[in-house]
Amino acid sequence: MVEFQTSQLDTVFHALGDATRRQMLHALADGERTVSELADPFSMSLAAASKHIKVLERAGLIRREVRGRTHHCRLVPGPLASANRWLAYYERFWTERLDTLDRLLREEDAGRLTSEREKTDDSDTDAEQPSRRRGDA
Amino acid sequence: MVEFQTSQLDTVFHALGDATRRQMLHALADGERTVSELADPFSMSLAAASKHIKVLERAGLIRREVRGRTHHCRLVPGPLASANRWLAYYERFWTERLDTLDRLLREEDAGRLTSEREKTDDSDTDAEQPSRRRGDA
Repeated sequence: MVEFQTSQLDTVFHALGDATRRQMLHALADGERTVSELADPFSMSLAAASKHIKVLERAGLIRREVRGRTHHCRLVPGPLASANRWLAYYERFWTERLDTLDRLLREEDAGRLTSEREKTDDSDTDAEQPSRRRGDA
Repeated sequence: MVEFQTSQLDTVFHALGDATRRQMLHALADGERTVSELADPFSMSLAAASKHIKVLERAGLIRREVRGRTHHCRLVPGPLASANRWLAYYERFWTERLDTLDRLLREEDAGRLTSEREKTDDSDTDAEQPSRRRGDA
């Protein structure tokens, strides 16, 4: 099972390591596409596009269905979820950084609030009568 | 910028497409390792392990520091965060599935609770005196 998952992750990450293939998956996220529709945005032969599609298919990222003379492809999200699970183990590393950033911003906000409150305390009458201030202007 | 990110994702996903390299990153998640320490768990030559380390280095996933005659490696989480962000776009596909599963389980639970409540209503006295029931046994 682990062996299967390992080799699946190998083929999935390998398939994702190419911008053309990632763009094809992006197109399939909007719905089913024929092979020609998938190949269309790229300045490459249908044969070259077809090779990329085969790599995605081998990784289990897409499923191809032949209807008449047309090949229809659709996204299979499972292997992307596996890749996501693998990466999730490392999430703490960037979460820790974001937590530190968050803490610093909160501290800065708290400091700003304190100094604003001090200012408000100095000009309490003005703050209580905004209509009069508007009238003054 | 987009071009840079695209080529960075290419090298990052390519680097992740190999079980040895993923295991090396896993070891580095626990802290700094020397090149020999990273190579140690694998039945391969130091030269072969070194090639894998270079792939990780080129992808920006690890940083190597030379101290005296020893090369020390540490994990750089940024590129993993980029890969994670790319995958996050597809998260809705497996979240949708999990939401459906969650809804079905809640419906099942709700059904079970209703039938349990009906049972409790039938045997209210027993439920209120568990000690007596235990005594009976």
